Amino acid sequence: MNYPDSFQRVINAFKRLPGIGTKGAERMAFHLLEMDQEYLLEFAKSLESLHEHVTYCKICGNISENSTCTICLDQTRNHKVLMVVEKPKDVFALENIQLFEGVYHVLNGCISIMNGVLADDLRIDELLERVHGGVEEVIIATNPTRDGETTALYLAKLLEQKGIHVTRIANGIPMGGHLDYADQMTLIKSFEGRRKI
Amino acid sequence: MNYPDSFQRVINAFKRLPGIGTKGAERMAFHLLEMDQEYLLEFAKSLESLHEHVTYCKICGNISENSTCTICLDQTRNHKVLMVVEKPKDVFALENIQLFEGVYHVLNGCISIMNGVLADDLRIDELLERVHGGVEEVIIATNPTRDGETTALYLAKLLEQKGIHVTRIANGIPMGGHLDYADQMTLIKSFEGRRKI
Repeated sequence: MNYPDSFQRVINAFKRLPGIGTKGAERMAFHLLEMDQEYLLEFAKSLESLHEHVTYCKICGNISENSTCTICLDQTRNHKVLMVVEKPKDVFALENIQLFEGVYHVLNGCISIMNGVLADDLRIDELLERVHGGVEEVIIATNPTRDGETTALYLAKLLEQKGIHVTRIANGIPMGGHLDYADQMTLIKSFEGRRKI
Repeated sequence: MNYPDSFQRVINAFKRLPGIGTKGAERMAFHLLEMDQEYLLEFAKSLESLHEHVTYCKICGNISENSTCTICLDQTRNHKVLMVVEKPKDVFALENIQLFEGVYHVLNGCISIMNGVLADDLRIDELLERVHGGVEEVIIATNPTRDGETTALYLAKLLEQKGIHVTRIANGIPMGGHLDYADQMTLIKSFEGRRKI
């Protein structure tokens, strides 16, 4: 027995989202059926206008309401220090710590043989162009995964050839974590990265 | 730092769905940003027209495109056997086994002191009215949870007073399950419900 067509269409739309399977999509659709029409219209409108109002910054690649994002426009920030991240959401995570005063460069992913992502698919050419403008330090903040590490090493090599000071964010036991639950690679990085207290 | 307004609106809409927190909603929104506009418009349209095209069957309470659902309209089915379920999705689960040839009655939940759902909040009056029309058997298929069991006992008492043959779906170890992983109550039900092979 099939669901009514209009109902099935909502399920199909949800099923295309990450981490949502058939059961989850059905649950969402049944939930929406019980919500008021006002919420559904608001939801629909937000989806329709998403692409219209949200674009990518032409300089750093972060999401933005204008062609240049507020961070890149901000002249009080240090434009000589670039933080390279994989995804726009990493920018928001880093901005929340309110410590970094430089600007960002979003790669749009990382080099991944498994996923068929090559260096050419990322915003690396744009990065190399940006560092010509007197950039003093590039902090590579790709994720400490195998692909993220590969990308970091690849970028470091390219940038050092241009005489740029390249740094990498620290790895180690996360705050509140426990040594006995940490994996070996994290423990190795934590030991290697030890500092005088 | 805040997300662009249009982006935040999409996040807010998703956050109101069951089982989706802030991180999940952000993930959905970033995913949608990379989808084509066609999909977003289709998604939006499906939400807008959901209430318009999907309603509840006036007889059984299941979701339907018309005021009477296809099951209730089907004269080849046995209208003298009613299966009582909590939610519309239970109807679809039961229809998938293609074994039951009677009709359904959706309660719209179950009696739950914890959630403040009383017998009056459910479609019980409608059920009692339906059984007057020569119904021979009522199979109670509420979930075997504490609240579902309470509801089953409550309904059984009401229906038996009217001389209706009331049955309950079987409980036991699910197929493919393991005895050593089953909880005590399931084992008890499985033992009590043993049958000659």
